[in-house]
Amino acid sequence: MTELRGKTIDELAGHVGGIVSGVCTERVERVASLAEASAHEIAFVEDARLVESALQSNASCLIVPEVIQDLDGKCLIRVARPKLAFALIAELLHPTIGRAPMVHKLAVIAGSAALEENVFVGAHSVIGERTIIGAGTEIHSGTIIGDDVTIGRSCVIHPNVVIYKGTVIGDRVILHASVVVGADGFGYVPDETNSLHKFPQIGRAVIDDDVEIGAGTCIDRGALGETRIGRGTKIDNLVQIAHNVKIGERVVIAAQTGISGSTIIEDDAVIGGQVGLGDHAHVKSGAIIGSKAGILPGKIVRKGVWWGIPIQPLEDYKRLNAHMNRLPQLREEVKELQLRIKELEDEKANDK
Amino acid sequence: MTELRGKTIDELAGHVGGIVSGVCTERVERVASLAEASAHEIAFVEDARLVESALQSNASCLIVPEVIQDLDGKCLIRVARPKLAFALIAELLHPTIGRAPMVHKLAVIAGSAALEENVFVGAHSVIGERTIIGAGTEIHSGTIIGDDVTIGRSCVIHPNVVIYKGTVIGDRVILHASVVVGADGFGYVPDETNSLHKFPQIGRAVIDDDVEIGAGTCIDRGALGETRIGRGTKIDNLVQIAHNVKIGERVVIAAQTGISGSTIIEDDAVIGGQVGLGDHAHVKSGAIIGSKAGILPGKIVRKGVWWGIPIQPLEDYKRLNAHMNRLPQLREEVKELQLRIKELEDEKANDK
Amino acid sequence: MTELRGKTIDELAGHVGGIVSGVCTERVERVASLAEASAHEIAFVEDARLVESALQSNASCLIVPEVIQDLDGKCLIRVARPKLAFALIAELLHPTIGRAPMVHKLAVIAGSAALEENVFVGAHSVIGERTIIGAGTEIHSGTIIGDDVTIGRSCVIHPNVVIYKGTVIGDRVILHASVVVGADGFGYVPDETNSLHKFPQIGRAVIDDDVEIGAGTCIDRGALGETRIGRGTKIDNLVQIAHNVKIGERVVIAAQTGISGSTIIEDDAVIGGQVGLGDHAHVKSGAIIGSKAGILPGKIVRKGVWWGIPIQPLEDYKRLNAHMNRLPQLREEVKELQLRIKELEDEKANDK
Repeated sequence: MTELRGKTIDELAGHVGGIVSGVCTERVERVASLAEASAHEIAFVEDARLVESALQSNASCLIVPEVIQDLDGKCLIRVARPKLAFALIAELLHPTIGRAPMVHKLAVIAGSAALEENVFVGAHSVIGERTIIGAGTEIHSGTIIGDDVTIGRSCVIHPNVVIYKGTVIGDRVILHASVVVGADGFGYVPDETNSLHKFPQIGRAVIDDDVEIGAGTCIDRGALGETRIGRGTKIDNLVQIAHNVKIGERVVIAAQTGISGSTIIEDDAVIGGQVGLGDHAHVKSGAIIGSKAGILPGKIVRKGVWWGIPIQPLEDYKRLNAHMNRLPQLREEVKELQLRIKELEDEKANDK
Repeated sequence: MTELRGKTIDELAGHVGGIVSGVCTERVERVASLAEASAHEIAFVEDARLVESALQSNASCLIVPEVIQDLDGKCLIRVARPKLAFALIAELLHPTIGRAPMVHKLAVIAGSAALEENVFVGAHSVIGERTIIGAGTEIHSGTIIGDDVTIGRSCVIHPNVVIYKGTVIGDRVILHASVVVGADGFGYVPDETNSLHKFPQIGRAVIDDDVEIGAGTCIDRGALGETRIGRGTKIDNLVQIAHNVKIGERVVIAAQTGISGSTIIEDDAVIGGQVGLGDHAHVKSGAIIGSKAGILPGKIVRKGVWWGIPIQPLEDYKRLNAHMNRLPQLREEVKELQLRIKELEDEKANDK
Repeated sequence: MTELRGKTIDELAGHVGGIVSGVCTERVERVASLAEASAHEIAFVEDARLVESALQSNASCLIVPEVIQDLDGKCLIRVARPKLAFALIAELLHPTIGRAPMVHKLAVIAGSAALEENVFVGAHSVIGERTIIGAGTEIHSGTIIGDDVTIGRSCVIHPNVVIYKGTVIGDRVILHASVVVGADGFGYVPDETNSLHKFPQIGRAVIDDDVEIGAGTCIDRGALGETRIGRGTKIDNLVQIAHNVKIGERVVIAAQTGISGSTIIEDDAVIGGQVGLGDHAHVKSGAIIGSKAGILPGKIVRKGVWWGIPIQPLEDYKRLNAHMNRLPQLREEVKELQLRIKELEDEKANDK
């Protein structure tokens, strides 16, 4: 008896609460893009404007918005939010295949470290004294974890990550390659000869459950107290998070953004790439900050969409940008006024 | 019999198609800068304005533009493009000395991995299952290569690089220290509680022949499909390349630039440092983008020189910048016009 | 006999030249923030505006500015510069606890390398041929050091750092995790087919005494000659320093800043985060450059505070920014003038 691969359309539709329509015959094994999907693959159609591409797709099944009732008889799963359904179906069809539990003989694990069950520890890794690794967590090769670190359950710590001593990490956290958590923050106090004395960097970094952090991102420890990344927050590659930053839950931060010391970012904020936030700024819940924006130290950023350096509400930014682009024309208009006034003045002089 | 070190001037001139003039007696062993060169060293003079420095140089030989016919009798190699000739001569005098083939006993190589002949594998490295390493390639210490990776011939993968599973790398590729290739792209879909579900990141990263990538740069795998870096492209340090980006051939990208998902950069484009490109942008062949520029999502950037946030043609940018710098003056002119009109109006009122 | 923990107030005051006042009974063991300090902890009050918070603090002792003479009888150490005194006291109470000298059995040390006394070499590290490690220096796990490197005394090289061959590092240098020093600079010369030939990158990187460099920062070797970081300079995370850059002493550079090739930064300059400096720029001693600023190639930046893209003196930047924000109003004023002139012209026409 062969085990059937993949899922039926009904199973997938049930998983996302969708309605099946059209002719559905094949089992689905993989997700794919609309353009590249073929037999045994499922794709999604984000909105009705893509109907043309959808009709040409060779996917076995298409996830479509509810407004699309029929696509030439194709096998459809109709849902309110196709992209979300696609992501949920991808989780089902492509479950993360964890590393089989194992501690590599070239891993170096301190005598006082505690590993719960089913932990994977790759080659050339180090786990420090009194450090705790939760059940099912994977520590990949080359990752160096300091003393007194706590890592929760079902985490994936990719290769060559460095976690400094005292760091606390929750459950189901993913750290991509070369992430650094808990390095000293950047603070110095000059003396009378301008020699720089290190401000104490003796706090810690805390990363809550379900956080994912991109490759090469650096999260400094607190100077005094904590740097904290809240539950479910997602951070892209090469982001800099300074000491004592507090980031809330479900925040999204795109690549190469930098957040200066003690800045607060509340739940559900969305921050674009290459944004710079000055220290002690405060981004309120629901704020959306466009890429490359600059936020001055101490600035409070309320709910809404923000843009520019320094940031302004997007509408203001657009208006101002339009004004700036019309500057050459304004200049011309002023010149013309000068001529016309000169003429009036000259006539006046002649009248006298 | 002693082996003679270095090369004769005639050998070097022949290598670059240059014409020798002046008094040439010494063999040349090394390249050096104009200011620091001494005996047995060769330097180059980029243009005729540097004649004064050239006259003071102690180099055994100078590579000069053809227009310079004589420099006080100094030994010269005259060529059309001195800097190119200097680079070609440097390749000859300073050949990359590869690591002698060897697999370190502290490297961990999966049983199903395949290493062609003359491969160097440094200490504390890992090579995953079914991964193929081409002939003459060097995998330096601490580099972690996942399963099902293909790396071509004569590559140099510097220390502490991480290459995720499924990545494909061509021949003669150089990856500098701490590069990360193939990490998950950054894509999430919020559900009704704003919890973030990972959009599938199951594609791969492909790097073609003769690419060089700077330290700390991150290149994500495709979400679905590929992220691709074309043949001969050169990327500086700490650059971020997101999922499904397609970069053409001989593209140059300076440090800390970030390229968002699905953006296309065609052959021979040149992109400065700290540039940010939104997703689904399209940079056409021959476009040159100045440092710190910002390109909006979906923007098509045609051939030419571009600058600013958001980008504009350099000439427009300069003109607009000049206008902005004259804003205070424009403000004054408008004030003056207001006074003069007031005066005219007052006189008119008096006349009545 | 129990050893007493911490220090007396008199000891601490003596260490920083402060004056004790108020009721001091407890020994101090730790530094803490004003808000979080409790028994046996010392905090500092940066200026007199924080008196309210100071009165509510549970710290055993407060370091305050001299102008504060009494805080409700609390134990005070009065000094000219409280934050500096706090940093100095933190150094005393929280001395860096170095790694006990040890060479891990999974470290790979070349036969010709020379380690002075009391060196720590962590697991999975590599030390190359002819490399010298000074007394008391710590090379943490996973750090890869090439051939012919010199590292001074009492340095701390954190995990997963990569130091390319030929690099020279002074005494008491701290390199945080994943720093890369001495990778090839980014320079290519196109030939007639636009193939890119590598400009020779055969110089070296030199880091002087007492430098601290943040996680993930990359410092390229000189192309010809040196890249140099001067004594006492502090560099934050994810900074890019290109080939042949010369940085003076006691310079401060915040995160994600990028410095292009051959740029010079003189002593005591302060550079914000995400700043971009073009090549061959020259920042003079005492210059302060605001975050996100852009400096054009070749620009000379004199003493003073600079801001913007491209940079201007802060005062000019502010003025210009104010002018820009008033552009919509200027536009309105010009429109009004147009109407008024039209009216004058019409009347004039009617008069005739």
